Amino acid sequence: MRRALAASMRVHGTTSPNPPVGCVILDPAGDVAGVGATAPPGGPHAEIVALAEAGGRAAGGTAVVTLEPCAHHGRTPPCTTALIAAGIRVVHAAVPDPNPRAAGGATALREAGVAVVFGPLADEVGRGPLRAWLHAVRTGRPHVTWKFAATLDGRSAAADGTSRWITGPEARAQVHALRATADAIVVGTGTVVADDPALTARRPDGTAYPHQPLRVVVGYRDLPCGAQLDTPDVLHVHSHDPDAVLTTLSERGVVDVLLEGGPRVAGAFVAAGRVDRVLAYLAPALLGAGPAALAEAGVGTIGDIRRLQVDAVHRVGSDVLIDARPSERGNQ
Amino acid sequence: MRRALAASMRVHGTTSPNPPVGCVILDPAGDVAGVGATAPPGGPHAEIVALAEAGGRAAGGTAVVTLEPCAHHGRTPPCTTALIAAGIRVVHAAVPDPNPRAAGGATALREAGVAVVFGPLADEVGRGPLRAWLHAVRTGRPHVTWKFAATLDGRSAAADGTSRWITGPEARAQVHALRATADAIVVGTGTVVADDPALTARRPDGTAYPHQPLRVVVGYRDLPCGAQLDTPDVLHVHSHDPDAVLTTLSERGVVDVLLEGGPRVAGAFVAAGRVDRVLAYLAPALLGAGPAALAEAGVGTIGDIRRLQVDAVHRVGSDVLIDARPSERGNQ
Ligand SMILES: NC(=O)c1ccc[n+]([C@@H]2O[C@H](COP(=O)([O-])OP(=O)(O)OC[C@H]3O[C@@H](n4cnc5c(N)ncnc54)[C@H](OP(=O)(O)O)[C@@H]3O)[C@@H](O)[C@H]2O)c1
Ligand SMILES: NC(=O)c1ccc[n+]([C@@H]2O[C@H](COP(=O)([O-])OP(=O)(O)OC[C@H]3O[C@@H](n4cnc5c(N)ncnc54)[C@H](OP(=O)(O)O)[C@@H]3O)[C@@H](O)[C@H]2O)c1
Repeated sequence: MRRALAASMRVHGTTSPNPPVGCVILDPAGDVAGVGATAPPGGPHAEIVALAEAGGRAAGGTAVVTLEPCAHHGRTPPCTTALIAAGIRVVHAAVPDPNPRAAGGATALREAGVAVVFGPLADEVGRGPLRAWLHAVRTGRPHVTWKFAATLDGRSAAADGTSRWITGPEARAQVHALRATADAIVVGTGTVVADDPALTARRPDGTAYPHQPLRVVVGYRDLPCGAQLDTPDVLHVHSHDPDAVLTTLSERGVVDVLLEGGPRVAGAFVAAGRVDRVLAYLAPALLGAGPAALAEAGVGTIGDIRRLQVDAVHRVGSDVLIDARPSERGNQ
Repeated sequence: MRRALAASMRVHGTTSPNPPVGCVILDPAGDVAGVGATAPPGGPHAEIVALAEAGGRAAGGTAVVTLEPCAHHGRTPPCTTALIAAGIRVVHAAVPDPNPRAAGGATALREAGVAVVFGPLADEVGRGPLRAWLHAVRTGRPHVTWKFAATLDGRSAAADGTSRWITGPEARAQVHALRATADAIVVGTGTVVADDPALTARRPDGTAYPHQPLRVVVGYRDLPCGAQLDTPDVLHVHSHDPDAVLTTLSERGVVDVLLEGGPRVAGAFVAAGRVDRVLAYLAPALLGAGPAALAEAGVGTIGDIRRLQVDAVHRVGSDVLIDARPSERGNQ
């Protein structure tokens, strides 16, 4: 399953609206006969890629796959049919498919005499590459990760507006890698006016990652002429309503959204309960003045505070990353 | 040395202006013959307490002590004399004494034929119970720990000023334990007016710790009549100058200061370069509005940002504690 998970991570960001799935086929002796991952939309699913590589060695073998194989005819024929036809005897699936349209994979396999085992690495897969897709299937909305960078005292820029660089090179490299797995990056017009960002996913050496997310600007203002985001491939959503933004993105097949601010757009998403993950990159530094990372989140008194729960805390170079989600017992 | 360190931790907060030292005496067979820690000012040093417990078993034995034994006549006779008289053959000391008045302990011991070894657990002792005292000896100023509580987005209260409780019970209990090891707690008049705090060190069950720090209020305003801090045992320093505050405290034997805010007093200490440790208790929660934890720290543009380095990151209940100090390569 580790190897199937690794295969799925390599295609993370390139498969939406399909899930990034990884599959390993073992021959009857238990040796790896094929490895596959979901191809871009319209292409084959992970199981089909792995079976093609395994060829005749799949007969009597085992399929290890990060998501329950699908049993429905979509753009491609069902994976269950292909697994059965190849003579697979056992399927290990990390997580069940919550998608009602695809469901029944395990049932179809078992009816054909294939043993199906759920669970190995379920948590790691469910919180990893499949997180956004599982969320989208369950809620009907894209998954939103709000990422921000701030000092320990919560400032995202100095009093005069200057802000480069608050966090260190390791944190910035991590954000670019994150962009390379997202379907879309969202900012407000305010950030475009203030910072003129490119919002591309680049490696530390300056070269572009192969996958570039859709760049999205939210707000009624026109973008300044000559701004880096003033190009036709940038989607400008003329709205202040997070749900309208998410619906527009959903219609374009977006599953995984990286919200990069600024403070007011982030505040609107937090207020609407549309932030599903918070990645706070905190620089060990103090400013004591300057704009905050979050504004106007609809909280006036302490009882309305938006509680999160911390999933993980990491040291990233000299910075600290807090990875959190809305608290299940909380008020979001 | 673990045991000597543990002994010193039990007296942390009760020994200033003397250092909280721990000492273990081993008999010639290597068995523990005596354990001691610094008594309150005027009382015996750790070595003397431990030697008294060991009695005749100290002869030919070893002393394990967290700080180099003193060789000077202060309020008590030199510890080196007592160790030599008791027949100690070997002394293990975690850290050397940087105090010029006390220095020469190792030399005096070696001249009497006692072997002296420095180093075991030096880091743990130097960053632990002896940190504030070592800082005070080196700089001539008390050591200042600025502790604050804020949300992930850097707010210490909601927009309407309400703030109870941002952090959880574990973090609050830790702060009370910290107070119980401090010599003084400092706040501004603004915090007294806004919150009317008691600033006592209490256990989770409400009972008081045996050691209570000196409570200090800074600012020109009179304290509101009936405020919890409006009592004669509270020191009110009529000044806005952090160095004036620290000099006043130093004259009273204060070595270890816990600065608990509010934002403007903390800003003044940060601006003056008089914060030696930052303890940021960050609650996984978002407010999007409300006062920041730090104000007016004298930073107007990003080049003047106050860089810190992170010593440790801890999960404390559902909160995150970032323990940092001014960066050595930085600008503070
Ligand atoms: N620390 C960080 O991680 C980070 C990240 C990004 C930006 N920033 C900083 O943020 C600053 C810009 O702040 P900002 O608040 O102006 O940026 P912003 O949130 O990117 O943009 C604000 C604009 O977004 C539009 N908008 C969309 N939905 C909205 C809603 N529901 N409510 C209100 N406005 C909505 C409005 O545009 P219209 O007026 O056009 O309708 C509004 O003026 C810059 O200085 C930048 O450096 C920091
Ligand atoms: N998050 C936390 O950990 C935390 C901790 C404590 C307080 N707070 C919050 O902080 C708020 C109070 O804010 P605040 O800024 O008024 O509190 P503050 O910093 O405690 O008090 C400000 C006052 O301190 C005096 N002061 C001393 N030295 C100063 C200097 N160098 N510069 C300016 N003033 C100096 C001034 O008093 P005079 O005018 O009398 O001269 C000033 O008005 C409260 O709402 C409280 O809840 C938060």
